[in-house]
Amino acid sequence: MKSQNKKLDHCNITTGTISFRVRYCEVDRMNAVHHSQYAAYFEMGRTELLRDNGYDYRDLEDQGILLVIAKLEIRYKAPAQYDDELELTTKVAKIDRVRIEHEYELVRPKDRCLIAQAKTTLVHVDRNGKIQPVPNFLCPENG
Amino acid sequence: MKSQNKKLDHCNITTGTISFRVRYCEVDRMNAVHHSQYAAYFEMGRTELLRDNGYDYRDLEDQGILLVIAKLEIRYKAPAQYDDELELTTKVAKIDRVRIEHEYELVRPKDRCLIAQAKTTLVHVDRNGKIQPVPNFLCPENG
Amino acid sequence: MKSQNKKLDHCNITTGTISFRVRYCEVDRMNAVHHSQYAAYFEMGRTELLRDNGYDYRDLEDQGILLVIAKLEIRYKAPAQYDDELELTTKVAKIDRVRIEHEYELVRPKDRCLIAQAKTTLVHVDRNGKIQPVPNFLCPENG
Amino acid sequence: MKSQNKKLDHCNITTGTISFRVRYCEVDRMNAVHHSQYAAYFEMGRTELLRDNGYDYRDLEDQGILLVIAKLEIRYKAPAQYDDELELTTKVAKIDRVRIEHEYELVRPKDRCLIAQAKTTLVHVDRNGKIQPVPNFLCPENG
Repeated sequence: MKSQNKKLDHCNITTGTISFRVRYCEVDRMNAVHHSQYAAYFEMGRTELLRDNGYDYRDLEDQGILLVIAKLEIRYKAPAQYDDELELTTKVAKIDRVRIEHEYELVRPKDRCLIAQAKTTLVHVDRNGKIQPVPNFLCPENG
Repeated sequence: MKSQNKKLDHCNITTGTISFRVRYCEVDRMNAVHHSQYAAYFEMGRTELLRDNGYDYRDLEDQGILLVIAKLEIRYKAPAQYDDELELTTKVAKIDRVRIEHEYELVRPKDRCLIAQAKTTLVHVDRNGKIQPVPNFLCPENG
Repeated sequence: MKSQNKKLDHCNITTGTISFRVRYCEVDRMNAVHHSQYAAYFEMGRTELLRDNGYDYRDLEDQGILLVIAKLEIRYKAPAQYDDELELTTKVAKIDRVRIEHEYELVRPKDRCLIAQAKTTLVHVDRNGKIQPVPNFLCPENG
Repeated sequence: MKSQNKKLDHCNITTGTISFRVRYCEVDRMNAVHHSQYAAYFEMGRTELLRDNGYDYRDLEDQGILLVIAKLEIRYKAPAQYDDELELTTKVAKIDRVRIEHEYELVRPKDRCLIAQAKTTLVHVDRNGKIQPVPNFLCPENG
């Protein structure tokens, strides 16, 4: 975590986009990205959005700020294939006292095909799994 | 597929339970089953429910009857850990002309802990990805 | 770990066989089990061989006895496919002061096809990753 | 495949380096990249080395040129962790009539730590799994 000895900066950047290629091992015998794989992509999107705001999720977790998935919802629109370049947009949709909701849009820029849309709900828990209030610095300043 | 030369039997069994152990590689650095892994468990549940009805999903797929995931929704209730024995109940919740909905309940029998609840929507597509009517034999006889 | 307050039993059982089905998500676009997946099967083989001897690897690890892979060697003989039932034989090939070597044979009983042969070398490390002597109870009594 | 209607270019570039970050889902409960994951990294290395030479492995495979793993050998030197940036160097070590051997070195540039060294042997098979001579264009011009 940056700025350890002073007031933490807020996460004011609420949308981010990453690009990546589909790996061989992520594709199933129908030649489509296996549907379980998308959750890993969304996780990468959240990690990079946090990094855009100056935080490493690894450090947060090492300090006991665990953000766990409480709910996942994915709508699969079209299959993505091995070696496709995909673009994932991750957006903080809502933060309240105990929950952070993200929305995702996964597209294949080459043909502007929408691959999937998704939503996740995270909760902040301590090392014992007890739900904790969402840390203030994770919210936008005027959020 | 069984009974290739006569009228296919209907899938009258609509609920099934499987047991399995959490593998080491399925667990993350929080010592919990990674949330992307559950989709693979649910897939096993559907495969075995189909087998209970006398069909191999492998054969269906080889014959061009592809059942693809259109929607997935998971609610994570409690973490499961490495080497836990889990029990998954898979239920056909609804079938209409183009969609099959399953509901899932994943529990850890040892302490009767509810690990997750989920829903999936499958659609039947041909090899070109075009949506097809759900084959009649996949529906219960009086369904 | 069993027998916590007395002398630990030795791991005298040095060979074990497990059966399992190939999962959909383990198969790639060539319709073959992805070659990275085999390492997870071998890990299951080691876990169950330890259980045959009365020990849970989870407990060992929680007590700080970490067995990490130092070397892996796999020879792929024939592809395994989705829904195949496979049989894995795991054997302790050699134990010395700092290393445990296992050998594996993965077959498909249906057609007696040899799928893969493999070897792993494990070392015992503490939580800081420092190599430790192999605990005595992991060796056969007259080994 | 490029240059479909003329003589294919040889793969004269025999070494390539890629960088990537360790994903959350790739790490196990010891907080280390799971040992099965490395094979997927090496596969990425081969894919990108082929791309450096102007070929897409996806296209080769779609045309029936299947390169399958016959042998994999990994020596694990140090654990890599979640969010580490890693650098993988992939080198064609040897090509003969029926085999392509690659060597790999995986390092963490931040602390110059050697994570793993590996070797793979690929063979060229047709869609029926029958071994075929290695296509000439995959060899360096004077190789």
